[in-house]
Amino acid sequence: MIKTIAVMGSTGSIGRQTLDVANANPDKIKIAALAANTNDELLEQQIRIFNPDIAAIFDREAAKRLNARYRGKTEILSGEEGLLAVATHNKIDTLVAAVSGYAGLRSTLAAVENKKNIALANKETLVAAGRLFMEAVKRNDVSLLPVDSEHSAIFQALNGERYEEVKRLLITASGGPFRGKQRSDLENVSLDQCLKHPKWSMGKKITVDSATLANKGLEVIEAHWLFGIDYDKIEVVVHPQSIVHSLVEFKDGSVIAQMGLTDMKLPIQYALSFPKRWDNAFGQLDLVKASPLTFEQPDVLTFPLLNLAVECGKNGGTAPCAFNAANEEAVYAFLAGKIRFLDISAVVSKTLDMHVNINNPTIDDIECIDKESRINARIAIKKMN
Amino acid sequence: MIKTIAVMGSTGSIGRQTLDVANANPDKIKIAALAANTNDELLEQQIRIFNPDIAAIFDREAAKRLNARYRGKTEILSGEEGLLAVATHNKIDTLVAAVSGYAGLRSTLAAVENKKNIALANKETLVAAGRLFMEAVKRNDVSLLPVDSEHSAIFQALNGERYEEVKRLLITASGGPFRGKQRSDLENVSLDQCLKHPKWSMGKKITVDSATLANKGLEVIEAHWLFGIDYDKIEVVVHPQSIVHSLVEFKDGSVIAQMGLTDMKLPIQYALSFPKRWDNAFGQLDLVKASPLTFEQPDVLTFPLLNLAVECGKNGGTAPCAFNAANEEAVYAFLAGKIRFLDISAVVSKTLDMHVNINNPTIDDIECIDKESRINARIAIKKMN
Repeated sequence: MIKTIAVMGSTGSIGRQTLDVANANPDKIKIAALAANTNDELLEQQIRIFNPDIAAIFDREAAKRLNARYRGKTEILSGEEGLLAVATHNKIDTLVAAVSGYAGLRSTLAAVENKKNIALANKETLVAAGRLFMEAVKRNDVSLLPVDSEHSAIFQALNGERYEEVKRLLITASGGPFRGKQRSDLENVSLDQCLKHPKWSMGKKITVDSATLANKGLEVIEAHWLFGIDYDKIEVVVHPQSIVHSLVEFKDGSVIAQMGLTDMKLPIQYALSFPKRWDNAFGQLDLVKASPLTFEQPDVLTFPLLNLAVECGKNGGTAPCAFNAANEEAVYAFLAGKIRFLDISAVVSKTLDMHVNINNPTIDDIECIDKESRINARIAIKKMN
Repeated sequence: MIKTIAVMGSTGSIGRQTLDVANANPDKIKIAALAANTNDELLEQQIRIFNPDIAAIFDREAAKRLNARYRGKTEILSGEEGLLAVATHNKIDTLVAAVSGYAGLRSTLAAVENKKNIALANKETLVAAGRLFMEAVKRNDVSLLPVDSEHSAIFQALNGERYEEVKRLLITASGGPFRGKQRSDLENVSLDQCLKHPKWSMGKKITVDSATLANKGLEVIEAHWLFGIDYDKIEVVVHPQSIVHSLVEFKDGSVIAQMGLTDMKLPIQYALSFPKRWDNAFGQLDLVKASPLTFEQPDVLTFPLLNLAVECGKNGGTAPCAFNAANEEAVYAFLAGKIRFLDISAVVSKTLDMHVNINNPTIDDIECIDKESRINARIAIKKMN
């Protein structure tokens, strides 16, 4: 049976790798819709290869450029309504939600309300609107498959197991490029140093989040919602080799781990092949070469965003949304050279100080807190210049 | 629902730990029958604690001693017929087959034919009579749960997975007390050195088998039959920390591992609790303390019994039975101080040289080859003195 999918964020790192998986499995995956943010040139190439029914580009100028050049059968759309059309396209059964950041929330939620299964790479959807999103998933009886390697690992470790017998989830972290550093070492680190992730090839935003460990905090919140596990049962362990992608400990003391090469195509493919596994050419894990595998406690003093994110998760309500909004603004400011590396956590802290939590928020509450937190974060960023 | 069980080999290492598990779970496990080889004193203690309906002791002198002392409600039996009565006791639904060596075969097979589920610690049953035994398991529609930590790990890693999607089983080996040694280092090793297993507390026979890696060869054969996986898809990897109990690689490159503390009570309990997991006080794996986890290729030149066993497995027929019989005789001769450590593999090789393989053997063929191989092994042992 062929799976017909849409890829939101097709020109980003996860999107491109999703298309690689689709390309390697033409008998199993059909691409019916694509959406990108601004990269009209790459989107055009993808359209020519996959011939989707529709393609959307969020940026209206980019859409104009593409429309001026392109003369094919694919319908080109733009703006928010274009993204929504892709996410809810009547031909698809699964949406690969691979937009980076908060921007993916509305369209992913719309896909769920239109009974689409979700392969979720956009963790901000669960971070900002976890309760709402999971309620929608349940109400619409769609399946939600994680694409993050850690969550895919936990999902795989839970295959055939009972969730009520879980004692702990152990999310592994590579530790990022600055593992072992002190805060004083990090005062003047450059963007280039920050973007050199030791193990995973990913987008810029998530690579910075890896360096601050904010990403791991977001992943704890994501795991909480995906698997319905209390925060006090979720731990982070640093594992620099990134071979063990995450682990689940059960109440009898048995620990199930999922391991593999550090190739995002593996969890992407699994999210599309589940409950089956498909052959591939990703290469084979060689345990002897991968040896030794080491594990250490995360340094929560040097990297305060990990605990700060988890605290927001525990507080619930709009706190994780505020954390995420502030962190996104701070990371983009860092990427733009406006603030220094250590300022990222300072911006998030200051923004959270001004946040007044709303319990059981509606989607409009979340939208509002997202905007407000971004404004507060930008003010904090300006003050740092 | 309470599980009513018999424990064959209750005074051995696995048997005693099974009773520890039963003792910790009086609401979940009832001991209805016990059987031991010769240790009447320990069996008597166990009878007083668990009050089984029947208890058997193979050695008739030991049975006489016990009968002379014991005045309780438990019926005391002896000899082969005593063991069979325990294995097929009408009240039990599960037999824990924890007799060491070939002696466990007849009674375990009888239990299967009497529709008892099997928690199998006696790997020789599968090594000597794999095809016959698995056919009996299938025909009688009983469940067969592995107790060996490696096979329990593979069984757990396969939970919720499709066997046809398995690419490789990776059985971990601690490497035993002589890991890293050359054959020249092993010429004069003592029994005491051999019995100091670095990680697992086990019976003497299996501890010697661990030192020669014969145990790992037997486990490959066991895994072949238990999981129906071809020999060329089963590999052994040395993992001195014994934290990763074994792994399964699937065709998409994903690897699922089961990990835990090195406590046999964990796989024993799992074989009794499956498909559930029960709470326990076995302690919790601390990955940071356990770090680093290392993996290396087994040294098949220094430890030839590993490949020799696997070769016998591949040859099929009565070859694994002959290997096992010769190895048992050689190990007992080594334990008795009759031969040296390196002589064990020499005895096995010489016995196998004289073995004429019988394809698709009957149980009588197996019995016959077992006896013949023991005689040949003893001749080889004598010649070494």
